[in-house]
Amino acid sequence: MKKQQLSILKIGGNIVNDDPTCHQILSDFKKIKTPKILVHGGAKKASELMRKMGLQPNIIDGRRVTDAATLEVVTMVYAGLMNKKIVSRLQAMDCNAIGLTGADANAIQAHRRVVQDVDYGFVGDIDEVGTAHIHQLLEADFTPIFCAITHDKKGQLLNTNADSIAAHLAVGMSELYEVKLIYCFEKDGVLLDVNDEDSVIETLDKKTFKKYKISGRIHTGMLPKLTGAFFAAENGVQEVVVAGTNVLSNPNKKGTTICV
Amino acid sequence: MKKQQLSILKIGGNIVNDDPTCHQILSDFKKIKTPKILVHGGAKKASELMRKMGLQPNIIDGRRVTDAATLEVVTMVYAGLMNKKIVSRLQAMDCNAIGLTGADANAIQAHRRVVQDVDYGFVGDIDEVGTAHIHQLLEADFTPIFCAITHDKKGQLLNTNADSIAAHLAVGMSELYEVKLIYCFEKDGVLLDVNDEDSVIETLDKKTFKKYKISGRIHTGMLPKLTGAFFAAENGVQEVVVAGTNVLSNPNKKGTTICV
Repeated sequence: MKKQQLSILKIGGNIVNDDPTCHQILSDFKKIKTPKILVHGGAKKASELMRKMGLQPNIIDGRRVTDAATLEVVTMVYAGLMNKKIVSRLQAMDCNAIGLTGADANAIQAHRRVVQDVDYGFVGDIDEVGTAHIHQLLEADFTPIFCAITHDKKGQLLNTNADSIAAHLAVGMSELYEVKLIYCFEKDGVLLDVNDEDSVIETLDKKTFKKYKISGRIHTGMLPKLTGAFFAAENGVQEVVVAGTNVLSNPNKKGTTICV
Repeated sequence: MKKQQLSILKIGGNIVNDDPTCHQILSDFKKIKTPKILVHGGAKKASELMRKMGLQPNIIDGRRVTDAATLEVVTMVYAGLMNKKIVSRLQAMDCNAIGLTGADANAIQAHRRVVQDVDYGFVGDIDEVGTAHIHQLLEADFTPIFCAITHDKKGQLLNTNADSIAAHLAVGMSELYEVKLIYCFEKDGVLLDVNDEDSVIETLDKKTFKKYKISGRIHTGMLPKLTGAFFAAENGVQEVVVAGTNVLSNPNKKGTTICV
């Protein structure tokens, strides 16, 4: 039997903080007719709140070192402020959104990252997606909205990269669905030349990605997204796209398709 | 056909902030065999964060005046910090908790309080409980954990008293279930003499409540709880109890039963 389609859209925190763009993309997302999941970031807002509280954000290679106080802040900003803003806006559009961390419904289980060069603190690497529970929610016509928090099933919340959450959700749910995963961000796709907005690469395979990475052609900020994208494409996800905020509304803005 | 039983437990923010008490009550809650819902507060922690951010909490007659900045703080503290702490702890006990605001699953719809003497800002008075959606979650064996945030279904989150949320949930769900509502707090029940911990009133009816209220015998901090409790008892909720933190584990600590 052909599996049902599931769309997973990942949006960056910058999009959530920009009211008109956020409204447009949520309204496009709402119109997706298949079951769907949204994953969102919120790093910039978390750093803002930390500074307001007199705390100093500590980010190494694009990853946040998460001590106990930082974990409280990211939990508040991601699971509280950002997640509930999105949920209430989607509800206003008659989309039956339900906001989740990985702890809710035991949706995403992780373990604290093993210390190598850097101790990232309460940062989680994902072990398992609760596909059965997420499937139950989708079957009941809820639309899960995931923020970038997971748990270890022993009572500890963990800060987990939203790009990675989207990739693991896509892989986990592809057991039950034909999954389309869209990473949506400020650019129209992966750019061959970071200074030329029109240089979107139509398709990107792993070999080319490696070549571009070595040559420095691909910007470091793109790495978690593309790492997640290739992980998904290599592990059973039907379609993986990196695209701009108008990917759902403009058929000419297809973004970059990830190939394996 | 006899309706199934549903237990709704409301715990105050002070209980959540006290680790051993919180652990004990969550562990007792977990053991409830019927479908169940937890509702929690978190006012003190919200005031703490406001002060850290250089904001001044403004509470009039026990109710928080909620401007836009305050709404952000309570959303972060209630829906983020407190809610996810409870959810992750219950998950560690193998209780399949799912944290919700009233916006999630459109579970509780409210309107911004009409200005009379005081403009409370983004404070919500409850209009409707999404009984069908909450029932779906309970049927799928999830345990909803509600914090004190609702929405107006037009994209606006609202700060709503947790005692009131518990009462409205109990009334709404009593369409489908025989509901037992327990308000759980620091005292062992309603005290006849606030200075005597052993003066717990076994049953309290509305007439006596009014009499005690006029004579000042009932402390103002108890009023939202008791107003909620009587609202529930008068509107179809089978059993309403105001009790201490050991109500679920100690058969001798039955607390105060509300009668109509």
